[in-house]
Order: sequence, then C-alpha cells, then structure tokens
Amino acid sequence: MAGAIAYISRDTDGVLWNKVLEAGLGPIDFRTRDNLGNKDDIEVALAWKPDRGLIASFPNVKLIVSLGMGVDHLLADDKLPPGVPITRIMDDGLVGQMSEYAIYFALRHHRDIDKYAESQRAKAWKPEDFVDTIHRRIGITGLGTIGQDTAKKFAALGFPTAGWSRTQKTVPGVETFHGPDGLAAFLARTDILINVLPLTRDTRGLLDARLFAALPKGAYLINMGRGGHVVDDDLLAALDSGHLSGAALDVFNTEPLPADHPYWTHSKVKVTPHIAGATNPRTASPGVIENIKRIRSGQPLINTVDPVTGY
Amino acid sequence: MAGAIAYISRDTDGVLWNKVLEAGLGPIDFRTRDNLGNKDDIEVALAWKPDRGLIASFPNVKLIVSLGMGVDHLLADDKLPPGVPITRIMDDGLVGQMSEYAIYFALRHHRDIDKYAESQRAKAWKPEDFVDTIHRRIGITGLGTIGQDTAKKFAALGFPTAGWSRTQKTVPGVETFHGPDGLAAFLARTDILINVLPLTRDTRGLLDARLFAALPKGAYLINMGRGGHVVDDDLLAALDSGHLSGAALDVFNTEPLPADHPYWTHSKVKVTPHIAGATNPRTASPGVIENIKRIRSGQPLINTVDPVTGY
Repeated sequence: MAGAIAYISRDTDGVLWNKVLEAGLGPIDFRTRDNLGNKDDIEVALAWKPDRGLIASFPNVKLIVSLGMGVDHLLADDKLPPGVPITRIMDDGLVGQMSEYAIYFALRHHRDIDKYAESQRAKAWKPEDFVDTIHRRIGITGLGTIGQDTAKKFAALGFPTAGWSRTQKTVPGVETFHGPDGLAAFLARTDILINVLPLTRDTRGLLDARLFAALPKGAYLINMGRGGHVVDDDLLAALDSGHLSGAALDVFNTEPLPADHPYWTHSKVKVTPHIAGATNPRTASPGVIENIKRIRSGQPLINTVDPVTGY
Repeated sequence: MAGAIAYISRDTDGVLWNKVLEAGLGPIDFRTRDNLGNKDDIEVALAWKPDRGLIASFPNVKLIVSLGMGVDHLLADDKLPPGVPITRIMDDGLVGQMSEYAIYFALRHHRDIDKYAESQRAKAWKPEDFVDTIHRRIGITGLGTIGQDTAKKFAALGFPTAGWSRTQKTVPGVETFHGPDGLAAFLARTDILINVLPLTRDTRGLLDARLFAALPKGAYLINMGRGGHVVDDDLLAALDSGHLSGAALDVFNTEPLPADHPYWTHSKVKVTPHIAGATNPRTASPGVIENIKRIRSGQPLINTVDPVTGY
C-alpha cells in the first residue's frame, strides 16, 4: 500500500473524508490527528489549523493539502517543511454556500426583515418603504473563485454589483476595481460590502476606521473572509456612531469568539460560527484525489498555493 | 385633454403614479379615490381592491388596469362593467422582489439561521450540521412570470428546482409538473414549497390538509400568492403536528391580518404585511402607458386578463 494520509483537524472526525478518498483511491491508510501511528509512514497531510510544527514532524510528507480554500491557517505554521508542495481544496459546494450566506444577509438588510420581525412581535401590519433593487449597490472585496461566484449571483438578482481585487479582473456583468488606487471609488459606491479576500500580509487589518469612513453612511458589512481583516474596535465604533447600519460576521480574530466579546450582544451584529462555507467532502474531494494520484505518479499538481502571495 | 385617469387604491396616494404617467403621456387629468370629480370624465381606472361597484359608476370608462399582477382583488367586484377590457401590470421590479422574498426565506430555513440566532443569544459557538444544497428541493406552485423568475434563480443557486402549473410549461433547468395528476409527485419531492399561483376558482383553498400531508415531513412553506390559497386551520395543524417545520406568510385570508390571529404569535410562522412584491411605478408604468395610448388610438391591448381563467 502507498503512504499514509493524515487528517489533521480539531473540527471534524474525518469519517466522511476517509470514505470519499477511499471511493476515489481504493484502500488507504487513513490516520487522524489523535492516532497518527508511525509518522514515517505519512505521505499526505490534509490539514485545517494544524498545530505549529506538527506537519514538520512527518519526515516523508510529500504533499500538504489545506482543508479550507483559504490557507492562512496553514501558513501561520512557520515550521512547515520547506519545499513540500501546498495545495488547497477548490470546493464548488463551499463556494455555493458562501454565496448563499452573502445573499441571505444582504437580502435581510435590503428587505428590512428585522423591522418586519419587530412589527410581528407588536402584531403590527406595517409595510416599510423599500429601496429599489437597482439602487442597492453591492460591493465585494476579493474576486477569486468565491468572490466571482457571489458577484455573478448578485448581478443576476438585479443588484448593481462591483468587485475589488489586488490585480485587475474582468467579471461579466460586474464593475471591477483594483489595487490600492481603486479602493476609494469602489467603497464610495458600495451600500453592502461583502468581504471574501484571502488573509495575507497585505489584507490583514484592511477593514479599519479609514475604510469604513469611505463607505456611504448606512452601509452594511458582511464578513466571510477572515477575522484578521477586521480591526474590531474600528468596526464597533463605526456601528456605534451609526455610520454603518449593521454587520453579519462569520469569522473572527479569535475563534471560537470569546464569550465576553461585545459582538455577541451588539444589537447591530449577527454572529455565526464560521459556517458561511463549510468544506464539503463531496465537492472538495475530487481535486484532492487527483493531487494524491499526481504526487504518486510524479505529475504536476493542481490548485497549488503560492506561499508568498498567500493564495 | 383626453379623459381622466382615476387612481383607486387605499394603500398609496398615487403621487408616484401621477408623476410616471405624466412623464410618459404628457399632461393628464389624474384623480384619486377621494377626489373623483365628475365621474363622466373618467376614461381609465387604475385599481387595487376597488370598492364593489365603484368602477361601474364610471359611465365612460374604457380601460380597467389592475395595480397588482394578480387580479383576484379586482374580479372580486361582481359589478365590474361588462365588456370593459381589463389589463394587469407586468412589473419586472415586483417580479424581482418576489424572487428576493422567496430566496430570503428559503435560505433562512436552508441555512438554519434561526438556530444561529438562538446560539448568539446564548453566546454559544455552535456550528450546525448542514444539508447540502443539492439535497434541498425547491418546489414552486405557479409558473407564470413570477414563478419562472423565482424558479430560474433557485436553479442558478444550485437547488434542485421544480414547478407545478395548471397547464404544461417548460422552464430551462427546472423540472415541471402540471395539472391535478402531476401534483402528488411534485409535492413528494418538495422540501420548500413556494406558492405564487393566481387566486382563481380552481386554486382557492388548494393549500389544505391533504396537500400538506403530501409534502415530506419537515417541509417549509413560503406563501407569496394569496391568503385565499391557504386553509388556515389546516396549516396551523400541520405546523403544530410537526409535519411542516415552518412557514413564511406574506398574504392572508383577511388583510391586514387581524390582531387576534394565531399566525402573529406562532413560533414557526413569519408574518410580513403583503410586501413580498410591491408594485413599483418605475417598472410597472411602461405597460400601463402603452395601454392608455393604445386604448386612445384603438389598437389591441397588451397584458390583458381573461376573466374566466382569472389571470
């Protein structure tokens, strides 16, 4: 049998991954974090937030696979064995879920659902004035696979939709901005800001007081990227001043979000526990299976990560 | 000047309609329900839930325009002057809003948002198991303009989507069923039922105990059609037995929904005050302007209603 596959995650037990990998590869030597056996056997590491230095303790590891589309959780381990290729999952199921999450919270804001819930509690029949869809401007930071899918779906719903990315991108039906010079104009035309950037040296802390001030008054934030993009005190100040009307946050600087964090009880904040896009073995495994086959037969890998850009 | 245009609605004051019609037709003699003047002058009646017999009191009326896409509110007036053509608005803005409403409440159910809200109140970081989008089956009763738009958008989000209509329809990417014989199979594969049927003799009371029983256990109902489609006691029983997991209701047998109605306080029911799709003069007026021009120049009308089928 070929080398072992180590499944390194504290969040899930790996049973589903064992099943889908076996379906694609035949019998495998599948090991989990608490049952790694002889580390010399490990050929492939599938990892989500691995303990620092753990992967480096596998002397024969040939492939590191990020179990998330973002790889910041992996690159945070400064002891990753140099020269071992890193790939990430590309997961249509996860991408679709992310778009669902963004559409859900955008519509909640756009259609004043919380006011209607309040009226229901008061048994009050009270139609609210509405903003025409063509006047609610959606802006998405990050135009990778997730950002593009999200952008296209908002555009198909009739929202004026724009995206901002580090390098220039073209997305049909979506206005695009790029680079530091394009940011101000992008923010000035954005009523609902949806963040799906990768977390890199350049993007950490990007969602700060200055960025919030560049949004129109009443703008709404949906963060599905990483908690590290947000300067929490700045976001709380922008909400409390009334400049931002609300925020739906799925990711946080510390996860799980500590029980004493003000987000939990803030009337303008919706907290969800990093569930906007869950890795789905059904849709994520084909690319992983392909890469395991390729590493075993010496072919070039797909979905590789550049540790310098961070995605 | 040509004949007067009477705006008959208790819900809105008509200021916007006056403006958009004048923009399309030039100066008009625009009159509202409380200020009709000499009824002999009235050539066109724009109506939403008109008082019984009111339109019949306009001796020279040549065109009746429903201010909603549904015309049951108009046909309920059994004294409508016979032989006067009836047209309805076709309103892209309203159609888009209806789809937004359906998508919003479907995603709320699909993504377990209410459980996350409960966890937030408890400051609990608690990811829920999720249902893969490809396993959440959407079913839409009514495949007119609204139903088709809604169906296409759900299909684009990756949900297995089906529609049921009186007569056979074909919608790309959507499985279609039709007629009384097709209903059981349609219901058996539907996890989220979205009703956008017109209210007619055939569809009144269609959403009854028998229909709910034909849905899989745990199904969710979104009603954007008319309150008259639902047998309220049957819906309450299906919710209370746990057979249905919840309902989002925008329309009711009596509107405004009476303060003592059990829907207001039912833990599984979301009540909104008939706002799923609001008539939007911007998008609804072009067809109305066109028909006023046509009636004045003796040309055939568009968007006509057949009083027999009721749509």
